[in-house]
Amino acid sequence: MFISFEGIDGSGKSTQARRLAGALAERGTETVLTREPGGSPGAEEIRRLLVEGGSERWSPETELLLFTAARRDHLERLIRPALARGAWVVTDRFADSTRVYQGAARAEQRALVDDLHRLMIGIEPDLTFIIDIDPEISLSRGQARGGNEDRFEGMGLDFQRRLRDGFHALAAENSDRIRLIDGSGDEDEVAARVLAALP
Amino acid sequence: MFISFEGIDGSGKSTQARRLAGALAERGTETVLTREPGGSPGAEEIRRLLVEGGSERWSPETELLLFTAARRDHLERLIRPALARGAWVVTDRFADSTRVYQGAARAEQRALVDDLHRLMIGIEPDLTFIIDIDPEISLSRGQARGGNEDRFEGMGLDFQRRLRDGFHALAAENSDRIRLIDGSGDEDEVAARVLAALP
Ligand SMILES: Nc1ncnc2c1ncn2[C@@H]1O[C@H](COP(=O)(O)OP(=O)(O)O)[C@@H](O)[C@H]1O
Ligand SMILES: Nc1ncnc2c1ncn2[C@@H]1O[C@H](COP(=O)(O)OP(=O)(O)O)[C@@H](O)[C@H]1O
Ligand SMILES: [Mg+2]
Ligand SMILES: [Mg+2]
Repeated sequence: MFISFEGIDGSGKSTQARRLAGALAERGTETVLTREPGGSPGAEEIRRLLVEGGSERWSPETELLLFTAARRDHLERLIRPALARGAWVVTDRFADSTRVYQGAARAEQRALVDDLHRLMIGIEPDLTFIIDIDPEISLSRGQARGGNEDRFEGMGLDFQRRLRDGFHALAAENSDRIRLIDGSGDEDEVAARVLAALP
Repeated sequence: MFISFEGIDGSGKSTQARRLAGALAERGTETVLTREPGGSPGAEEIRRLLVEGGSERWSPETELLLFTAARRDHLERLIRPALARGAWVVTDRFADSTRVYQGAARAEQRALVDDLHRLMIGIEPDLTFIIDIDPEISLSRGQARGGNEDRFEGMGLDFQRRLRDGFHALAAENSDRIRLIDGSGDEDEVAARVLAALP
């Protein structure tokens, strides 16, 4: 089973991915917790190029290619081998983030995102949780977190609102695969909603 | 005018690209000399990921995506602006290297290379010089050069022979754009052949 967590910055993806991976491991299921961009040694090196630097560092198209390179490495070196031996994979972000972040930059870009995904990646998670939250709440959480990986968070509240709309649209288009999870309330409340939505 | 130099490792591309750029500048033509992978600050950072490390560091597909990301940055940030202001651009390698190096790895990969080029790059040089030489000669030149950017050169003589065949096939398929230049003899002799082949 291949599960992804998606949502805007500070929505609680990393927290909930860790919680779910912990709950699965407790049940005795071999579980691999990973994240994007990154998740394999090569992809983590590409990640550094993506998350550091100013928002104009890469054009939307170059950025898209770098995300896809990192995803391809992650898929080949970590995700597919884990699924092949019967483990569950829980990833903090996958291709839906690219659809929403790189697709949100410009409407025409969305077709390119889809073409590139078909050509170089192909696979979708079996199940995706989108942690849904008001950007004003998530941005204040993100600021509490600190660190220098703030290239997207630096793009501001309006950008986060467009991202949220993008995630809502994706959830509506892919209701078979995607579960929209209310991200408000404390960690335990959100974790309980995720577990309840597990098949 | 957009001109590329192509050929196997140690064939004399860098030497001849520099010579041609010098000759054009002497004539009073604004000329930009550049190289791939790299050529723009972002692409040079991606280049480091590509040229260092062992030959198994990236899968052929991930490598292809990284080369394409570097090329897209180089194209947007350096090549297109230079052509737009009327300069000539002379590049040490461009997309033909990807066709031959990444296409040589596996025959099925060549279709992927072409699809990705169409989707993300699109442009071809107006003129391409392939510096053609026996791999035994070029490998001995490459060893004289030193440095740690030897990921491809480390793949050996058989690989270089396949690359040379690949460049010959490309030249035959694209006789309008590509000139095959005999790379034997000293630098001056080869430079004279390049100038003579200029329209
Ligand atoms: N339900 C929650 N309520 C309050 N704070 C939370 C909650 N979930 C996560 N946080 C905190 O908010 C910040 C962002 O959470 P995180 O899981 O890193 O989000 P994301 O990975 O989506 O950016 C962290 O400091 C985290 O500890
Ligand atoms: N015509 C030539 N005869 C002998 N040595 C050459 C010639 N052209 C280049 N070289 C030398 O061979 C080495 C490889 O040349 P270079 O231009 O760097 O090739 P490439 O860029 O194709 O790898 C360098 O040390 C260079 O000085
Ligand atoms: Mg996170
Ligand atoms: Mg060279």
